[in-house]
Amino acid sequence: MSSDNMMDFYIENKIYYHDTDSGGVMYYGSYLEHLEEGRSGYCAYKGVDLLDLSRAGLIFPAVHLEIDYKNPARYGDVIRIFTDTDKIGNASISFIQEIRRGEISLAKAKTVWACVGIDMRPKRVPEDVKKALLSGRTESRP
Amino acid sequence: MSSDNMMDFYIENKIYYHDTDSGGVMYYGSYLEHLEEGRSGYCAYKGVDLLDLSRAGLIFPAVHLEIDYKNPARYGDVIRIFTDTDKIGNASISFIQEIRRGEISLAKAKTVWACVGIDMRPKRVPEDVKKALLSGRTESRP
Amino acid sequence: MSSDNMMDFYIENKIYYHDTDSGGVMYYGSYLEHLEEGRSGYCAYKGVDLLDLSRAGLIFPAVHLEIDYKNPARYGDVIRIFTDTDKIGNASISFIQEIRRGEISLAKAKTVWACVGIDMRPKRVPEDVKKALLSGRTESRP
Amino acid sequence: MSSDNMMDFYIENKIYYHDTDSGGVMYYGSYLEHLEEGRSGYCAYKGVDLLDLSRAGLIFPAVHLEIDYKNPARYGDVIRIFTDTDKIGNASISFIQEIRRGEISLAKAKTVWACVGIDMRPKRVPEDVKKALLSGRTESRP
Repeated sequence: MSSDNMMDFYIENKIYYHDTDSGGVMYYGSYLEHLEEGRSGYCAYKGVDLLDLSRAGLIFPAVHLEIDYKNPARYGDVIRIFTDTDKIGNASISFIQEIRRGEISLAKAKTVWACVGIDMRPKRVPEDVKKALLSGRTESRP
Repeated sequence: MSSDNMMDFYIENKIYYHDTDSGGVMYYGSYLEHLEEGRSGYCAYKGVDLLDLSRAGLIFPAVHLEIDYKNPARYGDVIRIFTDTDKIGNASISFIQEIRRGEISLAKAKTVWACVGIDMRPKRVPEDVKKALLSGRTESRP
Repeated sequence: MSSDNMMDFYIENKIYYHDTDSGGVMYYGSYLEHLEEGRSGYCAYKGVDLLDLSRAGLIFPAVHLEIDYKNPARYGDVIRIFTDTDKIGNASISFIQEIRRGEISLAKAKTVWACVGIDMRPKRVPEDVKKALLSGRTESRP
Repeated sequence: MSSDNMMDFYIENKIYYHDTDSGGVMYYGSYLEHLEEGRSGYCAYKGVDLLDLSRAGLIFPAVHLEIDYKNPARYGDVIRIFTDTDKIGNASISFIQEIRRGEISLAKAKTVWACVGIDMRPKRVPEDVKKALLSGRTESRP
């Protein structure tokens, strides 16, 4: 995953016992819950309501996830989950995310979500969703 | 909760990292997942298919839970989840359960489940479900 | 559990997919994670640092939980977790909690925590912890 | 991830409500719990005791995970988690895994684990661990 220093949207979460395991650090699966919360906050910030979309018959099942675990999080830590749109394909959306504690990067993740109807067949990502998620981006990244 | 030495049905589970927290023991909420698995196994053993019932429009939301935590479970432990029907009311079912590691009692729990339709209004527990869950019980407990 | 309209401390959480199950509502075990977050926030608000206490050799394993589930929570709901000290015994602390969505009560819970040393033997609850947790309470409840 | 039809070790798990979300299928994070259980079973089968290793001061934090979600799992499904060693580096181990329901592939995953001491500095994977995890493999894969 390429580093992305341009992500500016984040939510802030605390690490509780339910996030951790007896290895003393955050469980490797618990990161995915924080990533979900980060994407949910990001989409709301961009004006995209995933719940409304699902009511309208568009759902977004996960198709791919990759995550690099860089530093452990521990009980009591305050973390920030940064999220940005990576790219939008014909029938998929991908996000890049980073979890940080202060200046320290704890994890970087990329997720890809299919855009499908309730029949589970691919659907085109609606134009307004596409526009909303790509808004505020510098068109010409070097 | 009264002790119940008559429970004979159990399932056996292992404790994994995802069950534990950084206190070094099983998280207090993770017990509820093992209790779910125990009830599910018990109902299947009694010939009651909760999924079939839900498809037929009967669902069983949790209304009450109480649990006494007696001894901690740790990563790698093999536990047994014992389950029995406690009683069946007009529109509710309650189960008693115990989690043990070998001879040691780790937790005792009682859960109460409402029997409702998809409109969330109380429904009578079907006679065959009642009969199945109460089968094999000594009628005259002292 | 007696109703308690005097609880005034709360934290606010959102319900995400990771809280729910395929029954369409919050999983009965996920409430315990929100209850943990509520107690953690409450203790911090009262000036009690559980992590500091654990470093000083005092830990608080769960010994009892009871919860009445009153109304389901769903994906997207914003809930408030109210917490108050119930009572403090020689070597235990109990909390009462309520989860609400707006004016609607979703669940009421009581938890009891032992106060033990790292040898797992009962320890007296420190006076300053006792004082902090009981501060601001009307002495003479009718 | 390359397909791997040679994996022959698997464990069998059932999908419970605690694995699912209100989208009606297994939560994208719950796969990681089943993957943990699969690796744990696989290591035990190969004679490698992760708990013993951690007591001896060797721990294996996650450094990378990638997973392709191919088909949803639902409540009541019986799944098989296949696991094999992918490769063993100087101070890391990687596993490949596949989750199947009958003949249908639900997910394929690769995880990479660092081998570190309690000081979190890289340690060489012990020779007997390496030998055990690579045992039974055809040396000459094309």
